[in-house]
Amino acid sequence: MSTELDVKLPSFRQLQTLIQEESEVEIKLITNDLLVGKVRWQDNFCICLLDHYDQPTIVWKQAIVFLKPKP
Amino acid sequence: MSTELDVKLPSFRQLQTLIQEESEVEIKLITNDLLVGKVRWQDNFCICLLDHYDQPTIVWKQAIVFLKPKP
Amino acid sequence: MSTELDVKLPSFRQLQTLIQEESEVEIKLITNDLLVGKVRWQDNFCICLLDHYDQPTIVWKQAIVFLKPKP
Amino acid sequence: MSTELDVKLPSFRQLQTLIQEESEVEIKLITNDLLVGKVRWQDNFCICLLDHYDQPTIVWKQAIVFLKPKP
Amino acid sequence: MSTELDVKLPSFRQLQTLIQEESEVEIKLITNDLLVGKVRWQDNFCICLLDHYDQPTIVWKQAIVFLKPKP
Amino acid sequence: MSTELDVKLPSFRQLQTLIQEESEVEIKLITNDLLVGKVRWQDNFCICLLDHYDQPTIVWKQAIVFLKPKP
Repeated sequence: MSTELDVKLPSFRQLQTLIQEESEVEIKLITNDLLVGKVRWQDNFCICLLDHYDQPTIVWKQAIVFLKPKP
Repeated sequence: MSTELDVKLPSFRQLQTLIQEESEVEIKLITNDLLVGKVRWQDNFCICLLDHYDQPTIVWKQAIVFLKPKP
Repeated sequence: MSTELDVKLPSFRQLQTLIQEESEVEIKLITNDLLVGKVRWQDNFCICLLDHYDQPTIVWKQAIVFLKPKP
Repeated sequence: MSTELDVKLPSFRQLQTLIQEESEVEIKLITNDLLVGKVRWQDNFCICLLDHYDQPTIVWKQAIVFLKPKP
Repeated sequence: MSTELDVKLPSFRQLQTLIQEESEVEIKLITNDLLVGKVRWQDNFCICLLDHYDQPTIVWKQAIVFLKPKP
Repeated sequence: MSTELDVKLPSFRQLQTLIQEESEVEIKLITNDLLVGKVRWQDNFCICLLDHYDQPTIVWKQAIVFLKPKP
């Protein structure tokens, strides 16, 4: 994995859409934690999630099991 | 791993078949969760799964243990 | 890891032998699940296992802890 | 992954900011441990965290689930 | 990681020595299993372990936590 | 990851210092095990740890969560 962004991949673009639409998402982590918030930015390694108080959490993609837009 | 899709690999093609046939699958995850649904798309990093209400879940391939077409 | 198969590696060839001889194997997974069946095919990312009813399971190699031919 | 630093990535730069500002952070690990301290340095593989007694802990990035600046 | 063996690395050579000397080793796995046996061969991805009945187990290196020669 | 050592990285050099100074370290593993000893050598994949009886343990870096020099 390198520093060039994987911008052409569906998963990368799907996340970009969620960022632009400021959608709320649920992220399930390998520790079984469930984070809820809005995705602020992503790169190849991380996602930045804002919680309800706009506090940022930098989540490593390696630790993500699944991500669900809240319906 | 790069942005080019691994389209020639059996595992990749097998998943493409499941997408085209809209088959229902079970996905076992490293958190021991078991997801059920239809695969909508895949890329090198993720699989998008639609549940019975057509809600999408983006599943990271790194977190998949096994996938079983429902018989 | 790329799309070219690692065909020269002992582990890859050993698995090919098990496929050709239709040997029964036990696969221990990181979730502690133990799968039993015959290996149908492999590529760099996955192994396809057939259970006693010939139902296929696509197992991600990343989730395999060990594999044992049944004696 | 290579020895060149991923200095252009947002996640890398965000961490650099936290290092320069000597901000206190919480780091959640895949073992469910929660470490608290100040980030001293990072490279592609590790983060060095200083606890309240200025004792260093070298944390492998592969084991990080998320990192949160303390509000 | 590619098909060329990492033959120059200390960890690789150390394992080669254990293979040649038919030393008994303990292998701790990420599932917390502890396997005991003699290493028969290794490649970049796997180690083959022979138990007391000379039954082979193919262990994925990705699942190894540590390996200890029995004293 | 390749066979060339990542000798320029801070994390690699920090470990080299610990090796040269024969410092005692604590290593937390993803299985939650805590190993104590002196680091004898490292390469890109492994660390060799000597316990109080000078018995070596080859620890895979992939399984390390954090490492702490004993104060």
